Amino acid sequence: MESVKGAVEAVKANKDIKCTLVGGLDEIKKMLKAIPYSLGEGNIDILNASDVVTNYDKPTSVMEERPDSSMVVGLNALKEQPEKYMGLVTTGSTGAMLVCAFRKFGRIKGVSRPALAPFLPTFDGGRVILIDAGANIDCKPLYLLHFAIMADAFLKTVYGIERPRIALLSNGTEDSKGNELNKEAFALLKAHSSLNFLGNVEGREIASGAYDIVVTDGFAGNIALKSMEGTAIGLLRLIKKELTTSGILTKLGAGLCKKAFKRVQKVMDYNELPGSPVLGINNIVFKSHGSSKAKSVRMTIERIKHMYESGAVEKLAQALQE
Amino acid sequence: MESVKGAVEAVKANKDIKCTLVGGLDEIKKMLKAIPYSLGEGNIDILNASDVVTNYDKPTSVMEERPDSSMVVGLNALKEQPEKYMGLVTTGSTGAMLVCAFRKFGRIKGVSRPALAPFLPTFDGGRVILIDAGANIDCKPLYLLHFAIMADAFLKTVYGIERPRIALLSNGTEDSKGNELNKEAFALLKAHSSLNFLGNVEGREIASGAYDIVVTDGFAGNIALKSMEGTAIGLLRLIKKELTTSGILTKLGAGLCKKAFKRVQKVMDYNELPGSPVLGINNIVFKSHGSSKAKSVRMTIERIKHMYESGAVEKLAQALQE
Repeated sequence: MESVKGAVEAVKANKDIKCTLVGGLDEIKKMLKAIPYSLGEGNIDILNASDVVTNYDKPTSVMEERPDSSMVVGLNALKEQPEKYMGLVTTGSTGAMLVCAFRKFGRIKGVSRPALAPFLPTFDGGRVILIDAGANIDCKPLYLLHFAIMADAFLKTVYGIERPRIALLSNGTEDSKGNELNKEAFALLKAHSSLNFLGNVEGREIASGAYDIVVTDGFAGNIALKSMEGTAIGLLRLIKKELTTSGILTKLGAGLCKKAFKRVQKVMDYNELPGSPVLGINNIVFKSHGSSKAKSVRMTIERIKHMYESGAVEKLAQALQE
Repeated sequence: MESVKGAVEAVKANKDIKCTLVGGLDEIKKMLKAIPYSLGEGNIDILNASDVVTNYDKPTSVMEERPDSSMVVGLNALKEQPEKYMGLVTTGSTGAMLVCAFRKFGRIKGVSRPALAPFLPTFDGGRVILIDAGANIDCKPLYLLHFAIMADAFLKTVYGIERPRIALLSNGTEDSKGNELNKEAFALLKAHSSLNFLGNVEGREIASGAYDIVVTDGFAGNIALKSMEGTAIGLLRLIKKELTTSGILTKLGAGLCKKAFKRVQKVMDYNELPGSPVLGINNIVFKSHGSSKAKSVRMTIERIKHMYESGAVEKLAQALQE
């Protein structure tokens, strides 16, 4: 339901965006009616898909065993009608999405592995890319170098950041820190002179605002991302509970602080982060949380448009050739 | 200075605790004078150590090359006067501390690797042990099983928790998730029927209160710990800034909410966590943050007393033999 709402929000906020919703026809129609949104308005259409991929499906079997799933139907449409679609966002299984998108579109030349590259909020109100946030669970040192090169090219070409500041996620800031994978990746990053590599960063400093890109393997990246997310969401929830279940004076105080809290929530909005692009795939594919809210889905759709219009995939391919 | 203050707080709050401060004699005397605390009160003494270990020293060389450092002098005293000392806490280099303590006291029989096992706050006001939080950066699956057994025995014998709930930190909750290390560790944990192993846990749920022990390798554990810590500290700091630099009404509101915030800060107090015990070492050794506040040092000293009086090391040894 939130995905459908997000699509409606996106087309209402952007006159030049059209969305195709992929899924059970009747179900989606019912959801649109409930919002309410009339298909007659013309900026949303539906592509029927009678099946869904579950988290228990083997990612490598999805293309063959679930050809009617929304994920496969959606990817097919993106592949077959490049003149109609800019990209795709799914809230489904990450593993299945990665395998299917990879098989459908292939990777950009020179990329060893595509990677999930979400923007995370920083405490100074900025953004940092964490790459890889969970696509490649077992990594080789070279993958991490490629993650850095991809994110670097992405920020340069799509966001116009001149020399993105890059750090490697580790268990300490000293050059000698890290597990075996990290130590080798550190040497590769250091040796790659076109990157603005600043050294190791601890988990504590990912969101400090001192870096534009934090490079890591998908296992550690996923743990860092979710640890930060869980702490931010849990802490804000705890504060809300304390403020709303306390005495009348506290409640009054909370009312007076409302605007300040809204500003904090806007900066640290882990509940409404847009989805993550899969960098390295030869098309624009985003993964959003299964629990994504409408606002997050809308922002993801807007980011797809931005990536498309800035020619991100072509520019990434070009940067990787150099 | 905070360590010295913490020791003074500990002896003042606990009539039966005595502390020996290890470090530069003149410097410590000056600090005590500034607090002020008079050595005449009798519960604090000083052991002179003219040198310090730095984060740039090679951990394996510290015992030979820095014999006069506070770390080595302190560990020697603990070794040579077991009738006088219950244990030791250091805010110095983690790597040096681990190597020196290991060489000095050895490990408990059956333990493959000693591990850092901090208690982290959970959102329901409880505690969870994260093991290993950074002692063993490159791990084998068997280490992770041993971490679980140690923490399990520790919670059972020292804290009287009957069946500690154990989870393995991974990139998803499904049994099939994890990197190669995790998948093998998962099978070992599952097969060890005396453990109450509940499966995989994501970073988001470490502090949910659903687990007593979260098992992980020292690299991922360190990243999870610091990611949570950084987010909690950064978010509370951001809220404080927003509340104190806004208009007069917000400030008034913040004043009214003060007690509610104090309660939140008490639950999520990453700034004042006590130090981490090194489980598996044949003595009581704690590691505290270099930036520890007096309160955190005091709590660590009290935890040393608690571990000592509950015969934790002996009980751990016994549990590991069974």
